[in-house]
Amino acid sequence: MAVQLPMSEVDVLIVGAGPAGLMMANWMSRYGIKTRIVDKRGTKIFNGQADGLQCRTLEIFDSFGFGHRAWSESNHMLEICLWNPDSSGVIRRSDRIPDTIPGISRFQQVVLHQGRIERFFLDSIESQSNIRVERGVMPIQLELDESLAEDPEAYPITVTLKHLSEAEATPDQGNGQVANGLFRSNLSSDDTQELLQRISLDDKANTLEVVKAKYMLGADGARSWVRGQLGLQLDGSSTDYVWGVLDIIPITDFPDIRMRCAIHSASSGSVMVIPRENKLVRLYIQLTTTEKDGDQKGAKVDRSTITPEVILQSAQRILHPYKISYEYCDWWTAYQIGQRVGTCFSARERIFLAGDAIHTHSPKAGQGMNVSLQDTYNLGWKIASVVKGIADRSILKTYQSERRRIAQDLIEFDHKFSRLFSGRPAKDIMDNEGISIKAFKEAFEKGNMFASGIAVNYGTSMIVAKEGDAVEQGDGLDVSATDKTLRVISQQSLATSLKVGMRTPSFKVLNQSDARPWHFQELLQSDGRWRVVIFAGDVSVPEQRAKMWRLGERLAAPGSFLQRYTVSGARYDSVFDLLTVHAAPRIETSIFDFHEVFRPFDPHQGWDYWKIYVDDQSYHEGHGQIYRNYGIDPAVGCAVIIRPDQYVSYVGTVDDYDALDRFFSSFMTPASQRPADQTSRSTRKLANGST
Amino acid sequence: MAVQLPMSEVDVLIVGAGPAGLMMANWMSRYGIKTRIVDKRGTKIFNGQADGLQCRTLEIFDSFGFGHRAWSESNHMLEICLWNPDSSGVIRRSDRIPDTIPGISRFQQVVLHQGRIERFFLDSIESQSNIRVERGVMPIQLELDESLAEDPEAYPITVTLKHLSEAEATPDQGNGQVANGLFRSNLSSDDTQELLQRISLDDKANTLEVVKAKYMLGADGARSWVRGQLGLQLDGSSTDYVWGVLDIIPITDFPDIRMRCAIHSASSGSVMVIPRENKLVRLYIQLTTTEKDGDQKGAKVDRSTITPEVILQSAQRILHPYKISYEYCDWWTAYQIGQRVGTCFSARERIFLAGDAIHTHSPKAGQGMNVSLQDTYNLGWKIASVVKGIADRSILKTYQSERRRIAQDLIEFDHKFSRLFSGRPAKDIMDNEGISIKAFKEAFEKGNMFASGIAVNYGTSMIVAKEGDAVEQGDGLDVSATDKTLRVISQQSLATSLKVGMRTPSFKVLNQSDARPWHFQELLQSDGRWRVVIFAGDVSVPEQRAKMWRLGERLAAPGSFLQRYTVSGARYDSVFDLLTVHAAPRIETSIFDFHEVFRPFDPHQGWDYWKIYVDDQSYHEGHGQIYRNYGIDPAVGCAVIIRPDQYVSYVGTVDDYDALDRFFSSFMTPASQRPADQTSRSTRKLANGST
Repeated sequence: MAVQLPMSEVDVLIVGAGPAGLMMANWMSRYGIKTRIVDKRGTKIFNGQADGLQCRTLEIFDSFGFGHRAWSESNHMLEICLWNPDSSGVIRRSDRIPDTIPGISRFQQVVLHQGRIERFFLDSIESQSNIRVERGVMPIQLELDESLAEDPEAYPITVTLKHLSEAEATPDQGNGQVANGLFRSNLSSDDTQELLQRISLDDKANTLEVVKAKYMLGADGARSWVRGQLGLQLDGSSTDYVWGVLDIIPITDFPDIRMRCAIHSASSGSVMVIPRENKLVRLYIQLTTTEKDGDQKGAKVDRSTITPEVILQSAQRILHPYKISYEYCDWWTAYQIGQRVGTCFSARERIFLAGDAIHTHSPKAGQGMNVSLQDTYNLGWKIASVVKGIADRSILKTYQSERRRIAQDLIEFDHKFSRLFSGRPAKDIMDNEGISIKAFKEAFEKGNMFASGIAVNYGTSMIVAKEGDAVEQGDGLDVSATDKTLRVISQQSLATSLKVGMRTPSFKVLNQSDARPWHFQELLQSDGRWRVVIFAGDVSVPEQRAKMWRLGERLAAPGSFLQRYTVSGARYDSVFDLLTVHAAPRIETSIFDFHEVFRPFDPHQGWDYWKIYVDDQSYHEGHGQIYRNYGIDPAVGCAVIIRPDQYVSYVGTVDDYDALDRFFSSFMTPASQRPADQTSRSTRKLANGST
Repeated sequence: MAVQLPMSEVDVLIVGAGPAGLMMANWMSRYGIKTRIVDKRGTKIFNGQADGLQCRTLEIFDSFGFGHRAWSESNHMLEICLWNPDSSGVIRRSDRIPDTIPGISRFQQVVLHQGRIERFFLDSIESQSNIRVERGVMPIQLELDESLAEDPEAYPITVTLKHLSEAEATPDQGNGQVANGLFRSNLSSDDTQELLQRISLDDKANTLEVVKAKYMLGADGARSWVRGQLGLQLDGSSTDYVWGVLDIIPITDFPDIRMRCAIHSASSGSVMVIPRENKLVRLYIQLTTTEKDGDQKGAKVDRSTITPEVILQSAQRILHPYKISYEYCDWWTAYQIGQRVGTCFSARERIFLAGDAIHTHSPKAGQGMNVSLQDTYNLGWKIASVVKGIADRSILKTYQSERRRIAQDLIEFDHKFSRLFSGRPAKDIMDNEGISIKAFKEAFEKGNMFASGIAVNYGTSMIVAKEGDAVEQGDGLDVSATDKTLRVISQQSLATSLKVGMRTPSFKVLNQSDARPWHFQELLQSDGRWRVVIFAGDVSVPEQRAKMWRLGERLAAPGSFLQRYTVSGARYDSVFDLLTVHAAPRIETSIFDFHEVFRPFDPHQGWDYWKIYVDDQSYHEGHGQIYRNYGIDPAVGCAVIIRPDQYVSYVGTVDDYDALDRFFSSFMTPASQRPADQTSRSTRKLANGST
């Protein structure tokens, strides 16, 4: 085009405002990164699309301050009931399993409409930044200047955005009938032209603009335009199992309709029952079992044969002799199971893919939104840290090294789970082709750990200081520190249950100054900071106290990492939140027993009372026993580094200051060497434990 | 005036939009009552005015759906530290006491700015109704036509309202300095002309209107205009103790500055430390100790001598040898302790007084807002029930019978507590004039139970079925049922710890249908309904099951109280929420083991899964042991009636249908006899435990 288009610069451009894109924008809001997020759809609202929320996802929501909203609005699932045919072919409850493994998290798995979750993100982003989702906007041209990829000051990405008219951003839907989910299903054609009719687009409609960006995220779904532009592929296959989904208020005499149920009938197929909020129940029902050829698009089912009535009738056959019907249907859809994962998650660590854009799988495992969210929960703080000049670009490789394995695990889990679920139940122990109750139950129980999101264990890298080979554990990428002399290895034995590479489990600790109990995770808010947590042990013992003072002297000394990586004039806890959890009796201890660096003084606000905690009995909420639960000896203690996303980076001895310094030196950029424009803004609000 | 003023009718007119008035409006929003609430002040916002929130107040907030907001924003106080002079006259910590007695509530006492609490109420009211606070509006004339007082259809109250201009509703304040609380203190003159300058009043400014009302509430503060119009008096006295209040971010080496502290110095007076939200700490400091004459207005202190500097210097002397100073002061004030309570709480049970309008006391006990809120929490549902025609007017007498005693208890508590706190500490055991540490600690511990709000125990009346004389227990008013043959007496022995007349304690129960744990109080939302809770016992035992079926048959029979007092066509759970808590093993029980009346069927929505609960082990939250904690024998069980405000009305045998019927018959009006215009609206939203 000869016409000069309007042009602007942005640090991060996000394409797609589903959960993965919103999580990315949410991180950017916390770091204060100049960000735009666009979505071709004219509105966020659509029916259906309920999703299970893993324990881990709820922990993450809580770290951003909206966990309680999801917790209170959602339906909580406590128990899984397995139903199978008895010897006479009639379905019976064969087992009850806790839906969430007791003790693994403060939260349990719940179910909530995706529209609500997007609402929480939008509110969170708006409360922290000026970032707003721009709807009815889609990219139409993309260029990456690879020669600039490694230049931290450069804007190597050039994107042309088109502002759609209302008609373009509006779907051919909305006839007042029950929402038909097929337009969102993989059985429908691409829904670019089928968006919902609820928005008036602004006066930019039908105009073009050019955006130069430092980084870009393609979170634009299974048919990702960004992925297509980059020429990246997904590997995998679809199966021939076709499933129907029906969201209804059930009228039934089936006694477990408010439990999560997996029901295998003798010869009528399977149904999964997912109780939802607002009296709704979702039924996932297997519609076909015939074998067809693998990955051919031609194998897809004829949409017109699938209706709510067809799905209901299948459910009625499976649930027989129980009765089920409904007067109110909220939503329905049908899909064919497909599992695919990308081989490459980014272009030059400048343009990244996340969520459905890089891995697809069946919705039935209830993992989809969780894994997508967690992709950008992993990526967001890394990009933000690089843009702000805190961290070197080399950490960005850890996105693929950490997340591709998760996507592969998910695909594998989904594949196994779907096969077990879709298969015919074994008639007896000699029936090798059928699925045995025992195998199914075992898969369910194993799946529960995976499905909690808690089992994620990232491999060794420059930001995960553990044994092993960084290439081998890193999806084939070398994600170790560039300067090999800086490598640090954790002493896992000092905290046997605080696993390096895994998320920090949570137990209660008391604030030393006011005796208030906090879940330890509540102190690990997603505000962009690294935590250095000193488990000081029993500081009433002189040896432990001496260790703490030695460490304190080094931390407070000129040129310590607290100072080198913090912008001059800023508090060091703008980058490093230095927390202490000791194990001496609370009432015999005060914060003044600790070196000043552990309770920094502010000339306007006095001492900081929200840095030192204790493992002791509370008045109303028991004893968290965090030392015992983490496997830390109070006579020894340890120092721990926790990433901004709550994963454990390092465990070492209390007074090994040098190891801490080396760890951060391996990927952080001294404040004196950062681009000037990024150092002017504080990355955080002042921490205040009491609010 | 000869000019005809605009005239309108309203069911309830509330004067004053402080906490007591807002609680009243909040109840009206839940019942759908036509209500207006006016306040002479131009804005709700003012600095300072932090208040302690009792456990009971938090329970009440939770029952309206905003407990979590107060809980998360407030500062939690866990421990009280008592400091006293040692033998050499230096202050030392002499004791630590839990601030809230462990086990009495799900919540603990917290501290939060009153402006936030008003915000929660305003949001709650707006979310449920069209009621909006009308600011800059004050009553200037009031008439009560006593001849119409007992006519349920009449509007016996006539009020002339004046809409103020901006200048009239605006205070002479706001010079950009630290907010001086004296204008809100009892040392200042009436603040009618000193309101805050933040509102533009609407175009009704300087106009008059006439409002006819069925009921009216004067919640217009210590200098209540409504009380003055009614010619009602407060009895009591003020003391000569003058206190200063300073809200600062402290810079100090005092180790307990984030604890609630009571510090008695040897000869420099006393200070109470109340840690607040946002790093603030409130200091209550005794400024004078000289004895002056009792209730004379002349005894008041010269305002001009009290400044933040004077208060700080006092604190510094008391805290010596610790140091304290500040750079940021949020608010300050000074007050003289006064305790007064009204002899009559209403005019003909048509115009009621609540909060500071009927009782005043020192702020230091942290009770003020709590008792005021709880006044109208008691009154609101009663007036709403009468206006809707559900209940007879006679229940309105129980407002005074129940609340005047609380006000008197509060005055007595405050008097004793203030004297102990203001007095000089005893030098030794022979020093009879000084206050001994032991006496002080005992008073504190006893005070803690009172100050929780949990100790309230209402006397026998038509809505509290317990032993004793209704006049004697009812502040001299006969609050028994008009028809004495309908009197019911509880069998307290069936639930030894579920005390008739007290609020329902909370323990966890599991939903039978989905195994989700709920705190029992969470089921008792303030939605205007009475609860009939059947503790069915172990229904796997035939005797218990038989009792339940007998009761179910009577409840389901034509003409049962469920039907008589429910409007034709409405679900009976619009008035009566019939809940069951059984004690058989959950996994051996289903809702279909119970008579249909306990799990009502809806043709559009199927069975109701949120009515039947079980006392059993949960997967993640332990075992609530509600039978054991309530003192109920699972082999016997009991039936319990709980008022709309969570107080226990009645405990009796499971299958004594007749007692239940008599209880409700003694004050409820059959639906067929209610005024037609009040029966058209449902009083509730459909209950849904899952949302």
